[in-house]
Amino acid sequence: MITSTANPQIKNLIQLQKKNRLRQEQGIFIIEGIKMYREAPTDQVIKTYVSESFYKKHQKEDIWKGESLEIVTDRVFEAASDTKTPQGVLSLVKRFEYDLDDIIQGSTPLIMVLENIQDPGNLGTIVRTGEGAGITGVIMSNGTVDIYNPKTIRATMGSIYRVPFCYAENMQAVMQKLKKCKIQTYAAYLEGSSVHDAQNYKEATAFLIGNEGNGLTRELAESADWRIRIPMCGKVESLNAGIASAILMYEAQRQRRN
Amino acid sequence: MITSTANPQIKNLIQLQKKNRLRQEQGIFIIEGIKMYREAPTDQVIKTYVSESFYKKHQKEDIWKGESLEIVTDRVFEAASDTKTPQGVLSLVKRFEYDLDDIIQGSTPLIMVLENIQDPGNLGTIVRTGEGAGITGVIMSNGTVDIYNPKTIRATMGSIYRVPFCYAENMQAVMQKLKKCKIQTYAAYLEGSSVHDAQNYKEATAFLIGNEGNGLTRELAESADWRIRIPMCGKVESLNAGIASAILMYEAQRQRRN
Repeated sequence: MITSTANPQIKNLIQLQKKNRLRQEQGIFIIEGIKMYREAPTDQVIKTYVSESFYKKHQKEDIWKGESLEIVTDRVFEAASDTKTPQGVLSLVKRFEYDLDDIIQGSTPLIMVLENIQDPGNLGTIVRTGEGAGITGVIMSNGTVDIYNPKTIRATMGSIYRVPFCYAENMQAVMQKLKKCKIQTYAAYLEGSSVHDAQNYKEATAFLIGNEGNGLTRELAESADWRIRIPMCGKVESLNAGIASAILMYEAQRQRRN
Repeated sequence: MITSTANPQIKNLIQLQKKNRLRQEQGIFIIEGIKMYREAPTDQVIKTYVSESFYKKHQKEDIWKGESLEIVTDRVFEAASDTKTPQGVLSLVKRFEYDLDDIIQGSTPLIMVLENIQDPGNLGTIVRTGEGAGITGVIMSNGTVDIYNPKTIRATMGSIYRVPFCYAENMQAVMQKLKKCKIQTYAAYLEGSSVHDAQNYKEATAFLIGNEGNGLTRELAESADWRIRIPMCGKVESLNAGIASAILMYEAQRQRRN
């Protein structure tokens, strides 16, 4: 049992929680909590840390995945955890490797293209809602927040395991690829000329969503086939990026269901 | 100019940021930032604190509302602010006073009924998206987070000034009142028997949304005219409360526009 936060593994863990680059170097991400642990793909879980009291409680249950298990004192677990009230289980999980073709799948893909989303919670919520709406994947600009950020992972509520995603260096190359695959592209744009629900999303569709403060860059918005706007009553100037994404994805789901 | 955080006004301000009960006793709430200040109803702004550098920059602009103005050093402002990167303007604003009749307005009201929402950001986002979708108001159970929480206020992005709201002690009494006013009530419920977009929201409508972790209490869900569910693909078990609200409110807006 690890009893000290000076233990090299724990020191590494604390750094991994904070540093994107370190997680990337080690090819892993961190998941926390019982729901995230249960749903994790067995063959990707490298190592699991459990608090003493969590282990006592769940030791005999059929939840373990056969990976290397390390028991730590509750105090040490708290120090290594990213949450305020740790549940007592935390794993290092091997990263996913997707490319564009994993995202552009099926006969009528439904894709989210995210440019420079900054809030980890927003990104995680888009992935969660996206799985619910039935998207085939998420493409992110390099300026988007790290999808393996612990806050993003938490906000996905497990959808991180099931929704393919990738980062793209060159967004114009992405747009060309989408065009080549005959996917209609719709940029969420405050000055969009068409109302979002007046379009047909039954065919292959990609929605483009921009940064929380500034929206899409003009360049990317103009490279889309359509610029659409979500009508807003009152004096509302814009919607939250996660909310706008949800409205678009669920409008597509509604059309595809009916 | 106030130069010390030991100043009684600043001490009060710091407590007001933290304590719901104190804000309630003093009949005020706190707004921060230039956008929130600009949009604040002039006759409700009681007092404004500005940082020295904010005042220097904006002194001659036509933004002031004629209220009592207090200049404080940048360091003192930082201590009194609830944000990480304070903009330098913060006001005490008189609370709103609405009753149910302000919310049940017009011939086809669109109302959000929230039961025990706990996350201040979720509540603020619902108010913001709600204004965008055209709701007539928000009714909250007493167990819902304080709508005057600084994080909620911030997440409303100014919609707090324009969307009527009230807290209700007795939710069953609220349901009876809605029934009496011939408002159809729709509970968002995971086991709902009908898909959310198969209903008609062109008439007077109220949506019921429950707590983030537990959803609506069975009692409240069962007192609604309809229990509706938002279809979810994949392995998603539920949607975020703010996201679910947005999907419902925008479905109502879509129907009412078309």
